[in-house]
Amino acid sequence: MTTIISPKQFSPVEDAENIKNACQGWGTDEKAIISILGHRNLFQRRLVRLAFQEIYHQDLLQQLKCELSGDFERAISLWTLDPADQDAVLANEALQKSVVDYRVLIEIGCIRSPEDLLAVKRAYKFRYKRSLEEDLASCTAGDLRKLLVGIISAYRYDGDEFDETLAHSEATILNHEIHGTGFNQEEVIRIVSSRSRAQLNATFNVYKDIYGRSITKAFPGGDYFPTLRTVIRCIRDPQKCFAKMLRASINTAATDKDTLSRVIITRAEKDLTTIKELYLKRNNVSVDEAVGRDCSGDYKDFILTLLGADQS
Amino acid sequence: MTTIISPKQFSPVEDAENIKNACQGWGTDEKAIISILGHRNLFQRRLVRLAFQEIYHQDLLQQLKCELSGDFERAISLWTLDPADQDAVLANEALQKSVVDYRVLIEIGCIRSPEDLLAVKRAYKFRYKRSLEEDLASCTAGDLRKLLVGIISAYRYDGDEFDETLAHSEATILNHEIHGTGFNQEEVIRIVSSRSRAQLNATFNVYKDIYGRSITKAFPGGDYFPTLRTVIRCIRDPQKCFAKMLRASINTAATDKDTLSRVIITRAEKDLTTIKELYLKRNNVSVDEAVGRDCSGDYKDFILTLLGADQS
Repeated sequence: MTTIISPKQFSPVEDAENIKNACQGWGTDEKAIISILGHRNLFQRRLVRLAFQEIYHQDLLQQLKCELSGDFERAISLWTLDPADQDAVLANEALQKSVVDYRVLIEIGCIRSPEDLLAVKRAYKFRYKRSLEEDLASCTAGDLRKLLVGIISAYRYDGDEFDETLAHSEATILNHEIHGTGFNQEEVIRIVSSRSRAQLNATFNVYKDIYGRSITKAFPGGDYFPTLRTVIRCIRDPQKCFAKMLRASINTAATDKDTLSRVIITRAEKDLTTIKELYLKRNNVSVDEAVGRDCSGDYKDFILTLLGADQS
Repeated sequence: MTTIISPKQFSPVEDAENIKNACQGWGTDEKAIISILGHRNLFQRRLVRLAFQEIYHQDLLQQLKCELSGDFERAISLWTLDPADQDAVLANEALQKSVVDYRVLIEIGCIRSPEDLLAVKRAYKFRYKRSLEEDLASCTAGDLRKLLVGIISAYRYDGDEFDETLAHSEATILNHEIHGTGFNQEEVIRIVSSRSRAQLNATFNVYKDIYGRSITKAFPGGDYFPTLRTVIRCIRDPQKCFAKMLRASINTAATDKDTLSRVIITRAEKDLTTIKELYLKRNNVSVDEAVGRDCSGDYKDFILTLLGADQS
């Protein structure tokens, strides 16, 4: 369920004009921008952007980038994009980092629906004139590459049916390769990157029944296994993963605003309500309170707006 | 360019009625069916199928399957399907064989456009309730699996731009892994399955410039390398590949009708004219003549109709 509060009636033209006014004159009226864009759903934001282009012959995103700065600008720019473009930009940024942020790619590969993942890959090709897969493949290596490229390339079946016999045989294979003496991860990668979510969840459940522990318990160390663990967790329980990521992003000396913004912006109109409930249950403090305590300024106001905290 | 001869004016309802008549009474009038469906383009066949369903509340394909048999039935059923469904059926058949026919999967993965490949994967999921990737992955292993799954999973960039520097560095990598002493094919598979066709062709050209021979020359033996060679050839020159496949399918003791039908049916409305020209140039005999000599009965008549041989 969505956390943002958007009006039933609104005028894209008035919004565009009010944003333009907020950008003109001495200083920018960030509060006005937050109060407009923070309260418009995806479809409404699209219309505002179209109206802005129509009236001022200028891209709203360019205008915002000129007027705003820092984490606030990054967050509001991301929010103004369509979901597929958000993910394409996030994936590209993750790949550009000196240490690639695999979590972003795992989120995109494992949590988006097959059709949404495809829309991201299409948006990526359109923006960067290369495929997401080729960029990912050329900056990773070994099993980690196979796993990540497998996940991003997948176009999984997304029905609810699953095969119980297959779940049994593949649970055994997973145990053998992950906890066995061999060093071959081929079958693990094949299973995790090609089977449907329903089939994988059946397999993980059978795994727990047979071996008496969750599949992600007692993983060896290194680069690859923690990534595999994240992959499995994202498939098994996306909302719990997001709640954990929020917690990790807030519970650091300097708040990890990239992750915080990403989770809140990409989930606000999807399942952020559930994520907030899980967060509260686990941490005895609400996301709103945590953000209120750790962030500041316009960035804080904007994130709180998306969280639905300003019920006024 | 298409080889089939289809009328500008036609009536889907009359076609449906004439096919129904051909199927009724004592024996089936195969000639009538060939003279109708063999002369209708994709859009027209769609309309005939719709009209048939509307009038007789029966799927045209089911009707044809009941009345016809053998290679002729298989060919005309395939021809009646939409391209994405044709490929989904062909891929599934190839995977069901005791020895998987990799060429079919390579054709689908390397020759279809990224969007067409996607349509095939969508049709496959819809028909078989599993993803093409998972079925392919579960019946292959090792480098061969990595290569084939990589190709089928790819959603390549399909623009014409390429990076000359990248072509140089990746040509060197390809030579090192294919002809070097190592047994690691990871980079080869990454490059071949993720780069765009334009980029790969640039890389193969640079390869030839640097090493003085085509990249597919002097490949080692085994299961994997001949498959890689087919992949590279399909990327480099699809029409030449199809001409070679036609030649191989005809030049055997018992004509390989699966391959012959597949190439002619899937390419008839695309590039079969070019493929026929290449065939004639290389073999001093036309495809029409070769088919006329090696095939017989209704199957021969139908294939010759698709080849545009019955100009009468």
